[in-house]
Amino acid sequence: MADDVLFEFLHMEIVAHVYKEHATREDIDKERVTCVSTLELMGFRVGQGLIERFTKDCPTFKDDLDVMKFLCKDFWSTIFRKQIDNLRTNHQGTYVLQDNKFALLTQLSSGKQYLEEAPKYLAFSCGLIRGALSNLGLESVVTAEVSLMPSCKFQVVIQKL
Amino acid sequence: MADDVLFEFLHMEIVAHVYKEHATREDIDKERVTCVSTLELMGFRVGQGLIERFTKDCPTFKDDLDVMKFLCKDFWSTIFRKQIDNLRTNHQGTYVLQDNKFALLTQLSSGKQYLEEAPKYLAFSCGLIRGALSNLGLESVVTAEVSLMPSCKFQVVIQKL
Repeated sequence: MADDVLFEFLHMEIVAHVYKEHATREDIDKERVTCVSTLELMGFRVGQGLIERFTKDCPTFKDDLDVMKFLCKDFWSTIFRKQIDNLRTNHQGTYVLQDNKFALLTQLSSGKQYLEEAPKYLAFSCGLIRGALSNLGLESVVTAEVSLMPSCKFQVVIQKL
Repeated sequence: MADDVLFEFLHMEIVAHVYKEHATREDIDKERVTCVSTLELMGFRVGQGLIERFTKDCPTFKDDLDVMKFLCKDFWSTIFRKQIDNLRTNHQGTYVLQDNKFALLTQLSSGKQYLEEAPKYLAFSCGLIRGALSNLGLESVVTAEVSLMPSCKFQVVIQKL
């Protein structure tokens, strides 16, 4: 269905716009506001909004792992139409979420030469995760890495207060 | 369902980002590139991409009116989850599409004082229509007006070559 790709197309446009705007901009803001942080912050706010809707009728979560499982299943599959393939944790607040076929990377060629482009397309999603966790009371740092497209890993480190 | 609002949330973020970036930008581009045209162009490209998917398995259209009917029904309801409520034409290339409850306006308060904000939230959708028509071989000029939120009218004028 075409509505599946509406989000993906729009996401592509945003990434292109943010990078293009950055490239043409010569004032002092250039150093301070990076493209990645702009995209991450957009994702953060969208993640906050979405999780509110998602968890409206949910029972409360019993611990952090329970929250992460919810993100990997319900949250992820509603946004990206598949679940996270693998969730690992060191049981000390660090989680690694692996998606073997990440929706926002499948439209890129998987050739090695595009690997350096990949982080552009992950920043928004890092923000999505961080925003969702934040609204569930967990402050976190979320990073992503790609070693072989279109698979990628998100690392979530929960910040203990 | 929460995925219904993913597009709407992301759209809100884009509008906010484009206007904020414009407000902080003081160089010469400010005059040339308006926010509305930036958003319209994003919509144009997304519309082009979507219509390609949509019409992949479609029979050809018999005339312009047939194309417009398709946009009002299938295209609109996949993106905005409802059909256009009213389609009128002068049979000379001008079409008026009325949506009595336009999805991207329903999240705004319907108070009169917000009426002047409305065009921000219509530019992208004007582009969507123009992009879809363009890929179906029809060049057009698309404008929108709101008199009472959340209803709005899109005017499409087909450009004869």
